[in-house]
Amino acid sequence: MSEKFNKNNKKSTEDSGAVLEGRNPVIEAFRAGKTVDKVYILDGCSDGPVKTIIREAKKRDTLLFFVSKDRLDEMSETGHHQGVIARVASYEYADIDDIFEIAEKRGEAPFVFLLDGIEDPYNLGAIIRTANVSGAHGVIITKRNASGITPTTVKASAGAVEHTPVVKVTNMSRTIEELKEKGLWFVCADMDGEVMYKQNLTGPIGLVIGNEGSGVSRLVKEKCDLVASVPVRGEIESLNASVAAGVLAYEIVRQRMN
Amino acid sequence: MSEKFNKNNKKSTEDSGAVLEGRNPVIEAFRAGKTVDKVYILDGCSDGPVKTIIREAKKRDTLLFFVSKDRLDEMSETGHHQGVIARVASYEYADIDDIFEIAEKRGEAPFVFLLDGIEDPYNLGAIIRTANVSGAHGVIITKRNASGITPTTVKASAGAVEHTPVVKVTNMSRTIEELKEKGLWFVCADMDGEVMYKQNLTGPIGLVIGNEGSGVSRLVKEKCDLVASVPVRGEIESLNASVAAGVLAYEIVRQRMN
Repeated sequence: MSEKFNKNNKKSTEDSGAVLEGRNPVIEAFRAGKTVDKVYILDGCSDGPVKTIIREAKKRDTLLFFVSKDRLDEMSETGHHQGVIARVASYEYADIDDIFEIAEKRGEAPFVFLLDGIEDPYNLGAIIRTANVSGAHGVIITKRNASGITPTTVKASAGAVEHTPVVKVTNMSRTIEELKEKGLWFVCADMDGEVMYKQNLTGPIGLVIGNEGSGVSRLVKEKCDLVASVPVRGEIESLNASVAAGVLAYEIVRQRMN
Repeated sequence: MSEKFNKNNKKSTEDSGAVLEGRNPVIEAFRAGKTVDKVYILDGCSDGPVKTIIREAKKRDTLLFFVSKDRLDEMSETGHHQGVIARVASYEYADIDDIFEIAEKRGEAPFVFLLDGIEDPYNLGAIIRTANVSGAHGVIITKRNASGITPTTVKASAGAVEHTPVVKVTNMSRTIEELKEKGLWFVCADMDGEVMYKQNLTGPIGLVIGNEGSGVSRLVKEKCDLVASVPVRGEIESLNASVAAGVLAYEIVRQRMN
């Protein structure tokens, strides 16, 4: 089994979404109706959240194992299992239609994150979490040169991957073209752009975030209607990709609330 | 030597600021006039940034070693050394006066980040990076139950630790009291608070960010003048701590620019 657990490899692009770590991600998986195959719980652990997990597992015929801390540590990829690790059916990517369905159900103009080559599974998870919290209806990622949904991603998303659809596409530029036909317009984060506060970011919108090192690729940037920047007032010239995504997403939220 | 390199331990609270990884952090260290003792470079590597590092190292009598990829991988904590690892004099924490000096030099009202128990060195680095980019004059962290400046922090800060003073205090509540006497007022990030857009966040300000799991501690929260929240529009109820810090910092920036 230990081969299945891809230890400490933050750069992994494999979709080993079969492992969930920590109480909240496991509880969220049960709540979202995911197929949880097995749950490993630290022997002797019986606080409220763990009791909830045990109750849900029994209700759904999930196999339940009480194991030692050493065993959990060995299985853990993230190093933060909090006494609970679960194996679920691997992550199922959504379709673009799922995103529009959610927007329609909420009666809101579509708001989508497009990630053009986020490589770090932890950043990917933090961004999916931000997408959920900020009210975006989905996240689109690319198949190549990017992280897929790994256990680190699931953990960093704080359970958001169970609620916010994540779609994987082959060609981001083509996807943008297709979404433009559905009425979306696109803003990308780039230092060259005009300060975000001065731009109109209301309406059906796609927020494009680029790679941690190289930013948004030229082809994708050319497809964007607007290029927005975060004001820089220090020596370092850019934010961490997941922080930049959050700052821009909340400028969109602010303008939508006005 | 390998004992010195604390591999893959993201939870480390040790200040092993003696190791820098990656081109930018090493270049920033030279630029900031840090004492760089040794530089290890991947044998055969000679692109622009590496040439800059070699030139700087020769200028300053830094010991220069050309080593194999295996050797660098073994030394690396972050797994992202990009062919360059340097050993510098360990991280020197600043004094609170250093923060006020920078604010005064820039002719700005003080803007300080206060981190009440950030445990993850990567989050700490991302937040120091955000503090620098958003124009804050310094970051205050606590000695206990929190991450200090580790190599992971330095790398995640993208070099910001070389520019933005980081102060370590024993008692955050007492520090807040002292800073209030210097005219600062304090806003903390918490879900209970009023939405940040509706609050006046101008003037000399301290932004208080709590622990990744438990948020701002009760004692510290009681000292804050304002409690600000980020609007939540999804199922997940909070942002990653470093994303929350970024979103709030940029609301402060926006209000300062108006």
